[in-house]
Amino acid sequence: MKQIPFIFTCLAIFIFFARPLKAQTDTRNITIGVVDSVDSKVLNEKRRILIHVPKGEGKKFPVLYVLDGDDHFEALVGMIKRLNSTDNCSEMIIVGISNANRNRSRDLTHTKADDPRFRLRNTGGGEKFMEFIEKELMPKIETSYSTAPYRIFVGHSAGGLLVMNTLLKQKQLFNAYIAIDPAMLHDNKKLLKESKKILTENTFANKFLFLAIANSMDEGMDTISVRKDESFNAMIIRPILETKDILVATQSNQLKFDYKYYAHDDHRSVAFLAEYDAIRFFFKDYKFIMKDAYLTDANAKLSVILETHYKKVSTQLGYTVLPDENLVNDAGYTALGKKQFDKAGNLFKLNVLNYPKSSNAFDSLGDFFLEIEDNANAIISFKKALEIKETPHTRKKMEKLLKK
Amino acid sequence: MKQIPFIFTCLAIFIFFARPLKAQTDTRNITIGVVDSVDSKVLNEKRRILIHVPKGEGKKFPVLYVLDGDDHFEALVGMIKRLNSTDNCSEMIIVGISNANRNRSRDLTHTKADDPRFRLRNTGGGEKFMEFIEKELMPKIETSYSTAPYRIFVGHSAGGLLVMNTLLKQKQLFNAYIAIDPAMLHDNKKLLKESKKILTENTFANKFLFLAIANSMDEGMDTISVRKDESFNAMIIRPILETKDILVATQSNQLKFDYKYYAHDDHRSVAFLAEYDAIRFFFKDYKFIMKDAYLTDANAKLSVILETHYKKVSTQLGYTVLPDENLVNDAGYTALGKKQFDKAGNLFKLNVLNYPKSSNAFDSLGDFFLEIEDNANAIISFKKALEIKETPHTRKKMEKLLKK
Repeated sequence: MKQIPFIFTCLAIFIFFARPLKAQTDTRNITIGVVDSVDSKVLNEKRRILIHVPKGEGKKFPVLYVLDGDDHFEALVGMIKRLNSTDNCSEMIIVGISNANRNRSRDLTHTKADDPRFRLRNTGGGEKFMEFIEKELMPKIETSYSTAPYRIFVGHSAGGLLVMNTLLKQKQLFNAYIAIDPAMLHDNKKLLKESKKILTENTFANKFLFLAIANSMDEGMDTISVRKDESFNAMIIRPILETKDILVATQSNQLKFDYKYYAHDDHRSVAFLAEYDAIRFFFKDYKFIMKDAYLTDANAKLSVILETHYKKVSTQLGYTVLPDENLVNDAGYTALGKKQFDKAGNLFKLNVLNYPKSSNAFDSLGDFFLEIEDNANAIISFKKALEIKETPHTRKKMEKLLKK
Repeated sequence: MKQIPFIFTCLAIFIFFARPLKAQTDTRNITIGVVDSVDSKVLNEKRRILIHVPKGEGKKFPVLYVLDGDDHFEALVGMIKRLNSTDNCSEMIIVGISNANRNRSRDLTHTKADDPRFRLRNTGGGEKFMEFIEKELMPKIETSYSTAPYRIFVGHSAGGLLVMNTLLKQKQLFNAYIAIDPAMLHDNKKLLKESKKILTENTFANKFLFLAIANSMDEGMDTISVRKDESFNAMIIRPILETKDILVATQSNQLKFDYKYYAHDDHRSVAFLAEYDAIRFFFKDYKFIMKDAYLTDANAKLSVILETHYKKVSTQLGYTVLPDENLVNDAGYTALGKKQFDKAGNLFKLNVLNYPKSSNAFDSLGDFFLEIEDNANAIISFKKALEIKETPHTRKKMEKLLKK
C-alpha cells in the first residue's frame, strides 16, 4: 500500500507536514512519558525516574540516560522527536534520572572533597551511583522496553563530571557521552590530572564524546586570557579548557571527539544547545540524502545505495540501523510509477527482508507483482500480508485476483 | 519564608538544580498540554488545537501561536520551559494550530495560485483562516486563560508565508513574528513584490521579526551564486533572500528585525534552531544579570536596579514584566543575612507591591520586620500572609509574637 508520501527533497515545500499524525487524539491530555521509580538495593533508597518510549511495534530504540532528569527530560523529548522527524537522529527511549534531592553531590562525585563554596556536601558516592545505574536501572529499562544496544549518557555540571569519569573509567557502559560544562574543578582537578594517562594508554574505538564549554568568565575575559586568570570565576572554565586540550592532543586513541565553546551561554543556559549539537554530532552521517538522480535515473541501484548507506551508519553507531521502511516503500512506488520495474522490485524486496512483520511491506510487494502481471507471486505476497494483519484493501485485491 | 535559594551567579556550579520540582509527582503520566478544538463558524468546520499552559496562579503569560502545531508543539513546550528556567524568556502559553489536513494549502495562502509542482491545491483561503484566528481562536484563549497582551506567531514554509503576510498587512494581531523558510515563491512572488512598498510606507514600532533561511540549494551553490541560479531548487531560497534584502534596506520603519542563514539545515530541519534563535532574539535583554556587587555592596540600590531593568524589559516587549518574585525574595534574604537592612526592606516591600496575592511575600516582609525588631509591622505582615493563605510556619511566628 502506498503510504502518504515520504518527501525526498526539500522541494516539496508545502506538503511535508502531511504525514499521519502521531499526536494523541483519543484523549484530551498530551502525554510524553511516565514517572516511575526503582527501589535501589545498592543505594538503599527509592529513585525517581522519568521515561519516554517512542511508539513503534517491533522497533528497537537506543536509550539516552540523562542526569538531573527533572530539568532536562521534557526538552530532550521534544528535541529528539523533532530531530528524528527530519531524519537527523533515530527515535530514542529517554530516561531521566532524578538528582533533585539532598544526595545530588553525593551521587555525581567519585571522590570525597566537600567544598562549602560550591555547597558540596557528602561527596564521593559516584561509584555506588554508577553501580545503581549499571546493575539496577539499565537492566530494568532493557527488560521493560525494546532497546537497541546503543546508550547515550548526558550530564551537566557535576553530572558532566560523572559523564567524564564514566567515559574514562567505565567506557563499556555507554556508546556516546555528552559532558556539559563539567565540574572538572572537583577535588583539586583530580580527574583532569588522571585523564591524560588514561586517554593516552587506552583506545576508545566507536566511542563518542561531545564536550560543551560555557562562558562562565568574568566580563572582559576570553578563552585565552582566562587561562592566566586566578580569579574565583575562572575556576570553572580553566579545568574544562585544559580537559579539551588533552582530548585534542590524544586523538590517536580513536575517540570520536568534538567540542564547542558557547560565548553567549552561561553555565546554566548552555545545556540546551549543547544537547542539540551533541546529537547532531553523534548522528552526523545518519540521514539518507535522496538525490534526484536516484529517482529519475532508471539505472540507479537505489536499493544497493540505501543498503550501503545504512550499513555504514550501523558500523559507525555500533548497532544495526535498518533503512527506513516508509522511505523505501515510497521510493518503490515512485520507481513503479516511472515503470522502473527492476528498481521498484528490489526496493519492495528489501523492505520485506528488513521488516518481515510488516503487513504493508508485503502488500506493497504484491502491488509490484500485480503491476508486472506476475499474479502467482502477487497472491503469495497478499496472502502473507493478510496473515500478518487482516486489511480490507489487501483482502479486496486478493479476492479480485482469485476470481481471475 | 526563605525559598530554596535562587542562584545568582554561575559559580553555584553544583547546586542550581536544587529548585523545587515542578514535574508531576501525583500521577504516573507526564503531561504537557491538552488537545482541544474550536467549532469555527468562520471556516464552517471543527479545528483541532493543542494548548500548553504554564503553572502559576495569578500570573499572566504571553501566548505563542504556532501553525502546523502537531509538528512543532512538543519541541516548543520543552524549549521554552528550558529557556525560561535559565531566565532567557518568560513562561508562555503555547497554542498549536493543527494544519495537518487537506486544507493546509487553503489556510496558509492568501491568493489563489494552485501549483501541482508543490502540490498546492485549493489555495487562497488565508484571509478566512486569519479571521478564524482573530475572531474565534484568540478570544477563546484569552477568555479561558490568564494571558499577557503579547502574542508570538510562528509559521514554517507555507506557514511562514502566512506569518509574513500577517506582519505586513495585519501587524496589530501579533507582537513578534517567526517566519521559517517562508514560501515567498507563492503566486509568482506576489507578497514579496508588495513588501517593499508596505515596509517603506509603514512603521513597525515594537514589532519583532525573525526570518530563518535554510540551505535548500543544489550542491555547490552558495547564497551569492544561487541568486543567478535559474534551477528548480533555487526557486525556494531566492525569494527568501530577496525578502531579507528588502527588510535590511527598510530598517528605518522601526521593525526590530534579525535573520539567520542556516548552512547546515535544509528546509525541513531548519525549524527547530530557528525557533530557538528567534526566542533568544525577542528576549535578548530579558534576563536580569545579578552582579556580585549588587549583593556584596551594602549601598547598592538593588530594588531600584531591579525595577529599572524590568521597566526597560516591559517597554521593549510592550507589556508589564514584573521582577521575578523568587529572585527578589532570595536577594532580600541575602541582604538580611548580611545585615543590609535598607536593601532587604526595599526588596521585600517591592515584592508585596508586585505580588499582593502572595502569602509568602508578606511572610518574608514579616521576617524582615522581626529581624529589625519592629513587632507591630511584623504582626501586620504575618496577618496579611495568613489572610491570603493559612500556613503553619507563619501561624507559628504569629502566635509567638502575640505571646510577647
